[in-house]
Amino acid sequence: MADTTIYRASTTAPVNIAVIKYWGKRDPTLNLPTNSSLSVTLSQSDLRTHTTATCSTTYSPAEDTLLLNSQPQDISNPRTQACLRSLRSLRQSLEDASPNLPRLASLPLRIVSENNFPTAAGLASSAAGFAALVRAVADLYGLPQSPTELSRIARQGSGSACRSLFGGYVGWEMGSAADGSDSLAYSVAPAEHWPQMRALILVVSAAKKGVSSTAGMQATVATSTLFKERAAHTVPARMKEMEKAIQERDFEAFADLTMRDSNSFHATCLDTTPPIFYMNDVSRSAIAVVNAINAAAGKTIAAYTFDAGPNAVIYYLEENETAVAGLFKALMGEKEGWEGERGQKVEENKMALVDIDVRAAAAVKEGVSRIILTSVGEGPISVTNHLVGEDGEPV
Amino acid sequence: MADTTIYRASTTAPVNIAVIKYWGKRDPTLNLPTNSSLSVTLSQSDLRTHTTATCSTTYSPAEDTLLLNSQPQDISNPRTQACLRSLRSLRQSLEDASPNLPRLASLPLRIVSENNFPTAAGLASSAAGFAALVRAVADLYGLPQSPTELSRIARQGSGSACRSLFGGYVGWEMGSAADGSDSLAYSVAPAEHWPQMRALILVVSAAKKGVSSTAGMQATVATSTLFKERAAHTVPARMKEMEKAIQERDFEAFADLTMRDSNSFHATCLDTTPPIFYMNDVSRSAIAVVNAINAAAGKTIAAYTFDAGPNAVIYYLEENETAVAGLFKALMGEKEGWEGERGQKVEENKMALVDIDVRAAAAVKEGVSRIILTSVGEGPISVTNHLVGEDGEPV
Repeated sequence: MADTTIYRASTTAPVNIAVIKYWGKRDPTLNLPTNSSLSVTLSQSDLRTHTTATCSTTYSPAEDTLLLNSQPQDISNPRTQACLRSLRSLRQSLEDASPNLPRLASLPLRIVSENNFPTAAGLASSAAGFAALVRAVADLYGLPQSPTELSRIARQGSGSACRSLFGGYVGWEMGSAADGSDSLAYSVAPAEHWPQMRALILVVSAAKKGVSSTAGMQATVATSTLFKERAAHTVPARMKEMEKAIQERDFEAFADLTMRDSNSFHATCLDTTPPIFYMNDVSRSAIAVVNAINAAAGKTIAAYTFDAGPNAVIYYLEENETAVAGLFKALMGEKEGWEGERGQKVEENKMALVDIDVRAAAAVKEGVSRIILTSVGEGPISVTNHLVGEDGEPV
Repeated sequence: MADTTIYRASTTAPVNIAVIKYWGKRDPTLNLPTNSSLSVTLSQSDLRTHTTATCSTTYSPAEDTLLLNSQPQDISNPRTQACLRSLRSLRQSLEDASPNLPRLASLPLRIVSENNFPTAAGLASSAAGFAALVRAVADLYGLPQSPTELSRIARQGSGSACRSLFGGYVGWEMGSAADGSDSLAYSVAPAEHWPQMRALILVVSAAKKGVSSTAGMQATVATSTLFKERAAHTVPARMKEMEKAIQERDFEAFADLTMRDSNSFHATCLDTTPPIFYMNDVSRSAIAVVNAINAAAGKTIAAYTFDAGPNAVIYYLEENETAVAGLFKALMGEKEGWEGERGQKVEENKMALVDIDVRAAAAVKEGVSRIILTSVGEGPISVTNHLVGEDGEPV
């Protein structure tokens, strides 16, 4: 009799926001970067992808499918295919070695995902998405590979996804092998090493979607004369300093490096032909507010960083919550995002506003559509809350 | 009997806008740059400083004075003093060699200047100002020094002033001597070599004055890791290519280098700690409009460049006036600046607007306060229209 079991495994996976930026591919197919990078994994209470991977002989048509937020996705793209091919190949090896194992490698996969992100927040969801996909299928297949070994697979889906296989503070070693075998993520420190790290995300409404990361990276590598210096010297030096800052829980050094590296990345975008601008006047005003917070504190207690878009991510330590998040709550407490448990705990700090340039404050208040308050968090977590029922249908 | 003559000499001097940017001083006192630069001198019909230098035994109090647009200026700053000291020293040498010459070197100088710039346009007027001051005093003193030799003096007043001692296309060789003796301006080509060059300046109202050039340069040199690459390799290569483009009247190469170098300069500003932003969202939209003009033309017919502020300077050739200036006239013909002879000749080109992103067009229309239409022009010109009367009083 045929095996009609619906095999299922579910995981949640986090978003990560880099403090030493990944920008530039030396191999676009394998997603091999031109420099190493380092990120903070954010808490899944606030931002996560939840993915259930299933397979069954009963699925018809007998082909792989992916549903994201109830919408069927095209998975014929080379990146998703590369991930699924690698995972199947590892399962096949297990099955070849153990003839008693169910033959899952040849079955069609039905994968269902949901993000808890606010829609249209312009948050890069591909890192959490590919990390969850790889982790869920690896669990479904019972693969023994470590997160670092799985990071090699997730990287082919989306470069920064490799860092979302770990919690806490995560490095991505660029490697040097042509086949990408040594381009892997590793844990710099777990979340509990420095759990006081907080992140306030200012979601900025962009008039227009910017250049895609992939297209932008290729253009920068091809045309920026300043980019080589960043990849060859600036980032390698900063990687070492940043690891040290994290090991020593030295927030001032962490913050200084974070801001410099964000600026350096955006500088190489501007040095691209034609120039790429991800930050806008609202982003610039957010920088001015952070600089003013630090000036008023007499030391660096807040650090901004910007990915390939206008949103500001502001890192700070729990002990400075009133000075940093409290200021933004006083400025824009009416925005969506403060109503959650974390946001309600933040003490409004109207007094701090006296140190802020009113034009910068007004531009931020006007241009930010919502906020997300979060913290450093854990890596992917296996869950038994499946998004596919025992009947094989999405629930 | 004492000589009561009012000795007078007058000159006008032009503004220049760099296409290979000066940014970074290796010696802030002598204004010695970290890289060579190259500019286009703009026509004095549109932008000029008019300066009359006078001296007399009759002036009381017996001290140097400077009146700019009817306002007394503080000339005790080291830069103005360095210029006046150098000029006096050259005059003194002449007097020592020729005892019959009037003894002017020891007399107080009364200098009167007027700019024909629209006030508050945010145009760097120091280049024209120091070039006019040096040229006028040199003429008053009958100095035999060439413009290149005088450029060494003007450079100490304001770096880019050295390039305003020439018309047309002007280089500033950074030099290597510690005393600045070989950091001099030279003519790459006179205006008549390529007289078809036009410049449209979009004057953008800035909410706030940015960081001063001098302070910004020092911060960039001190903190940007990308800056060294620009100064050591990027600019030297571009200087050669730009001189070739000008010699060959190759507008596409000229434009490509101009835009890349403006972006590179602003990239190093962004890579500064804290970051320096001179361009704003209106500037970015002006770039988008120029890119769209070139895309629609199928070749590069317009080149943007930005100095230390949000104003866009757009270079183009006379033959493309309708395609470039005509588009901006169609977009914002109601702005101040089109009413002059040059502006009236420009044919409005509404059809070209169909190729422009409406949001970029709207941002430019909204953010530009006035335009200036000009062209490549001549160097300083001796004039007999004195701003000081025969009685020694400003007229």
